[in-house]
Amino acid sequence: MTSRHIKLGAFLMQTGHHIAAWRHPDAQADAGVNIRHYVDLARRAEAACFDALFLADSVGVRNSEIDSLARTARSDQFEPLTLLSALAMVTERIGLIATVSTTYNEPYHVARKFASLDHISGGRSGWNLVTSSGQGEAQNFNLDEHVEHAARYARAAEFHDVVLGLWNSWEDDAFVRDTVSGQYFDPQKVHPLNHRGEHFRVRGPLNVARSPQGRPVVVQAGASAAGRDLAARTAEVIFVAHQTFEEAQSFYRDIKQRAGVYGRHPDDIKIMPGIFPVIGRTQEEAEEKFARLQDLIHPVVGVRLLSNMIGADLSGYPVDGPLPDLPQTNGGKSRQQLLVDLARRDGLTIRELYLRIAGARGHQQIVGTPQSVADQLQQWFEEEGADGFNIMSPWLPGGLDDFITLALPELRRRGLVRTRYQGTTLREHLGLRRPAHPAAEARQARAAA
Amino acid sequence: MTSRHIKLGAFLMQTGHHIAAWRHPDAQADAGVNIRHYVDLARRAEAACFDALFLADSVGVRNSEIDSLARTARSDQFEPLTLLSALAMVTERIGLIATVSTTYNEPYHVARKFASLDHISGGRSGWNLVTSSGQGEAQNFNLDEHVEHAARYARAAEFHDVVLGLWNSWEDDAFVRDTVSGQYFDPQKVHPLNHRGEHFRVRGPLNVARSPQGRPVVVQAGASAAGRDLAARTAEVIFVAHQTFEEAQSFYRDIKQRAGVYGRHPDDIKIMPGIFPVIGRTQEEAEEKFARLQDLIHPVVGVRLLSNMIGADLSGYPVDGPLPDLPQTNGGKSRQQLLVDLARRDGLTIRELYLRIAGARGHQQIVGTPQSVADQLQQWFEEEGADGFNIMSPWLPGGLDDFITLALPELRRRGLVRTRYQGTTLREHLGLRRPAHPAAEARQARAAA
Repeated sequence: MTSRHIKLGAFLMQTGHHIAAWRHPDAQADAGVNIRHYVDLARRAEAACFDALFLADSVGVRNSEIDSLARTARSDQFEPLTLLSALAMVTERIGLIATVSTTYNEPYHVARKFASLDHISGGRSGWNLVTSSGQGEAQNFNLDEHVEHAARYARAAEFHDVVLGLWNSWEDDAFVRDTVSGQYFDPQKVHPLNHRGEHFRVRGPLNVARSPQGRPVVVQAGASAAGRDLAARTAEVIFVAHQTFEEAQSFYRDIKQRAGVYGRHPDDIKIMPGIFPVIGRTQEEAEEKFARLQDLIHPVVGVRLLSNMIGADLSGYPVDGPLPDLPQTNGGKSRQQLLVDLARRDGLTIRELYLRIAGARGHQQIVGTPQSVADQLQQWFEEEGADGFNIMSPWLPGGLDDFITLALPELRRRGLVRTRYQGTTLREHLGLRRPAHPAAEARQARAAA
Repeated sequence: MTSRHIKLGAFLMQTGHHIAAWRHPDAQADAGVNIRHYVDLARRAEAACFDALFLADSVGVRNSEIDSLARTARSDQFEPLTLLSALAMVTERIGLIATVSTTYNEPYHVARKFASLDHISGGRSGWNLVTSSGQGEAQNFNLDEHVEHAARYARAAEFHDVVLGLWNSWEDDAFVRDTVSGQYFDPQKVHPLNHRGEHFRVRGPLNVARSPQGRPVVVQAGASAAGRDLAARTAEVIFVAHQTFEEAQSFYRDIKQRAGVYGRHPDDIKIMPGIFPVIGRTQEEAEEKFARLQDLIHPVVGVRLLSNMIGADLSGYPVDGPLPDLPQTNGGKSRQQLLVDLARRDGLTIRELYLRIAGARGHQQIVGTPQSVADQLQQWFEEEGADGFNIMSPWLPGGLDDFITLALPELRRRGLVRTRYQGTTLREHLGLRRPAHPAAEARQARAAA
């Protein structure tokens, strides 16, 4: 359906992915609840032929120290499914991927909303399946502590299977709607689920017809062993964070191999690492742009971010002094040691250390020219590191614009990205086949035998 | 804000409210998942200055006998919140009211989605709070039987209070977004909920800023004693079914009086009965239109509907023969007796009896001319029977068009409905005040003292 091109997601996050983006003079400070801002971004991304918009989510305000929290722009935002349903009406082709957690939800609601969005958008919806690990989220859903990792993944796996079962409630041609005979649907083509599992009992059928894509695209983001295994069995797109090409390549090969264990073809899973690009026409201009963002990080925010990562409260120490000796913690011991080693090796102050870690926060950060950005994307794409990238613009709309006007022309010149949409659904954009309904498939198999 | 006018809701239901509407030659048979159909309806209703669109909901396919179910158009439909978020982008003024049940949901999700829709739509969202009583719904949410009435209402009352608390998480001016100082929100103006009740433990705050309307409008539909009491305490709009003016007036007076018990002004609650209008330029034309719909009821559907209402399976009897003697049931004894009495008194066959009950199903059915429709609406409105009406078009779009082109001009001529929007929010349309934030109000009171 599509020739092999780099897949591109526009990972939209309010004012942008840089922690101080909201203070950028070109940013929309009230982006989180400004619909015109998102309409504008969606249209820019669609004009540039991105495969999809991608929205993260959290069902709560982060449980964090208030002085720092009050200086970051993450506490007010649209709920992703309402936002994407709205954006479906002001776009025509671009895919619409929303994150919804399996931890504090019910599969019937989730199956239904994504199927509904798939109908509304003419086959453009995708579900990023995650689990919730934040204490702040747990406390909004009748719990004191978050659900532990293994339990979250067991629930997530069953949740996924129930949602997929519900999406197959009706065969594609179940709704005959014959006004003359009065037959609205064919009773042979409805398939209640009658699921009775460890976490869920769901009878079905879903009260939404099978959706234009057969089913919405399933996206995942797990990097743990449990996460990788679930993704290899069930994900059609994997969104992942890598710092280096070697990491990316190792993950890519591992997943594509695991997929085979589940009888899947490597092309059935598209792997899209996050990229945090700061692009200038020259390297100097790119670095200036990045420095401008870094300068906007309020010390209270930077010190809190570092304190959280290092597992010790650094707010009592001079921000331009050296990192003090720290009592070792239990939890993040290895991460703590990495940060301490980095500070000691390069002789960094507390401020210099938090600036080092405050940018892409785990994702690949590229501060460079159109050529150097294209070089890296090309290498990852051509050498089994990635099928595409989720572009995490540092600030919005400027950072997305830079990617579109500076990097994309270079990628197009190299024939690495498409120049127009060739299909209408997210599956078609991504080169994922439309799944046949299992009952229809079985019927065909019997007929052929 | 508005002079006193009849409030008007456009209660949209797929192909229309008549059970056979989908077979009508002018209906959109695939309406349930046809976004263009809903866009068209929303624009027509907005052009006619309706106060709001209104969507019902059910979290499941009805648990019904398949032969009848397969001949009705209620099994495939958009999920209301995704649909209204989409419609927010193709309309500018009309209110957007979606039904969401409290029985199988969590208040954090519900608070968040309606607040998000309120931001997306510029202050036009409303939540119709209901409880779920269908067995088919229960079985999609880990239960075998539906939750009993008292438990549903206890949960609903606490659910409501949590949602309202979450909508007050932030004061109106909490988000200062001062890019120079780096202060994004004022820590004094965030109010976590810390709710610990019988059904819910919810810490908050909501991760959405206080919404344009202060909070979305709360709508309810309860007619039982528990439902009336909850509505009198909490509802801002009540959607209700009445067969006669006397019933409507008695309900209206009861609710407005109960509201006073909770310290509310009668005008703080708008009562909007459902109306099922079939309108012709002459009485004869109206009756022809209605007969045309009635003729489309498949006997299997009609007999099943009657069987369910009468509490006995009538499918084995000749449809054009008399109602047989029935064993008395426990559950619906009085309703059964009413139907039996009606059939005996008027000498009705089974078919004639199901035709009598198949129209508005509990709501006020008016088959008449623009004058007679206007007469009835005027009486109910002027004599304490209603503040407005939820128009349940028998088929769509034709039935809505008839109301707009035939009845509305007559109502306008009498000065009973507005001719243009005077405000921009649903609250402004309905004449409901924007609630002050409790903390801001308390601060003002202290300052004034």
